[in-house]
Amino acid sequence: MRQFVIELPPFQRGFHIIDDYLFHQITLPANGLLHLFLQHTSAGICINENADPTVRIDFETVFNKLVPEGMPYYKHTLEGVDDMPAHIKAALVGHSLCIPIINGELALGTWQGIYLCEFRNMGGSRNIVVSIFEG
Amino acid sequence: MRQFVIELPPFQRGFHIIDDYLFHQITLPANGLLHLFLQHTSAGICINENADPTVRIDFETVFNKLVPEGMPYYKHTLEGVDDMPAHIKAALVGHSLCIPIINGELALGTWQGIYLCEFRNMGGSRNIVVSIFEG
Amino acid sequence: MRQFVIELPPFQRGFHIIDDYLFHQITLPANGLLHLFLQHTSAGICINENADPTVRIDFETVFNKLVPEGMPYYKHTLEGVDDMPAHIKAALVGHSLCIPIINGELALGTWQGIYLCEFRNMGGSRNIVVSIFEG
Repeated sequence: MRQFVIELPPFQRGFHIIDDYLFHQITLPANGLLHLFLQHTSAGICINENADPTVRIDFETVFNKLVPEGMPYYKHTLEGVDDMPAHIKAALVGHSLCIPIINGELALGTWQGIYLCEFRNMGGSRNIVVSIFEG
Repeated sequence: MRQFVIELPPFQRGFHIIDDYLFHQITLPANGLLHLFLQHTSAGICINENADPTVRIDFETVFNKLVPEGMPYYKHTLEGVDDMPAHIKAALVGHSLCIPIINGELALGTWQGIYLCEFRNMGGSRNIVVSIFEG
Repeated sequence: MRQFVIELPPFQRGFHIIDDYLFHQITLPANGLLHLFLQHTSAGICINENADPTVRIDFETVFNKLVPEGMPYYKHTLEGVDDMPAHIKAALVGHSLCIPIINGELALGTWQGIYLCEFRNMGGSRNIVVSIFEG
């Protein structure tokens, strides 16, 4: 197994396709599994539609409705109004992905891309641990 | 690692137990991990209760309340009112599962079944990439 | 691959950091992947913030708002008002985690801890299947 860390540049709050950031840094074996692990608690990674940019805008809108900011019931408010909702949104999408590798390529569906879900207003750079299992 | 694709037949919108569709096509090793990866962005797979059918009806009801259709804030509307909510619901449940194999059987809990979560009105057939790691 | 089951003691309803319960029972290899699989359908496991206890209180509050109890639309009510919401919350956070192991340690981020999300009022003890891949 090969393992290394990719440091993503800071992204604006929102949902971003990061395929290009990842894949030019990853050499795939013929067959196996690619595991991605985001080392943070207020951002997430998931798979979704890789074509129409308005899909990612709608993701941001709906996640803000699912977990609204500034509600009086939050107790963890010290780090800003975006922080606690960011933790919960991150738990909803998750922090890791495992994708099959077949014939030297990721076995993603036609419309599947990899999203970085940046839930903080100023999240800064984010680290992804890459583990490549060949087999 | 053995890898192959299972094509599921079209399912109605809703939550469906697909254990039988999967397991008669998968020969398990004595020990290892089974990885399932759904190659789509408007359906998901997850694990949940495998007994009472009303559980899956309630899942459909609650997911429709979590991500309602036809709201004026959606921008990605070209593919129908069910499409954008389907993408978001799919991100909430996820597209892959990894299940331990012990003594030649999946180490599922007593009440655990595998759900296909079909979020489109006419989703059509869906592909799952199966990866079986023996070890 | 080494595989075994850890039985967690009963936890109160809510979100609980279980790192200590897990790690004194798990010997890690130099490199590889740790897979955790919760064998239940009304509890989940996820990764989130490991420092301020009010974060876990806010998680409980917000999940109860996302999937409210006692609503008239639930059909699966036989096992108590907390049961059906627990199934849905569990599907939202998921039942398994896969974490890289690098240099003999889990490659968790500084603020990442492992949560048991107990969604039942009286969930009882919960089993986690541990699979350790060395490679």
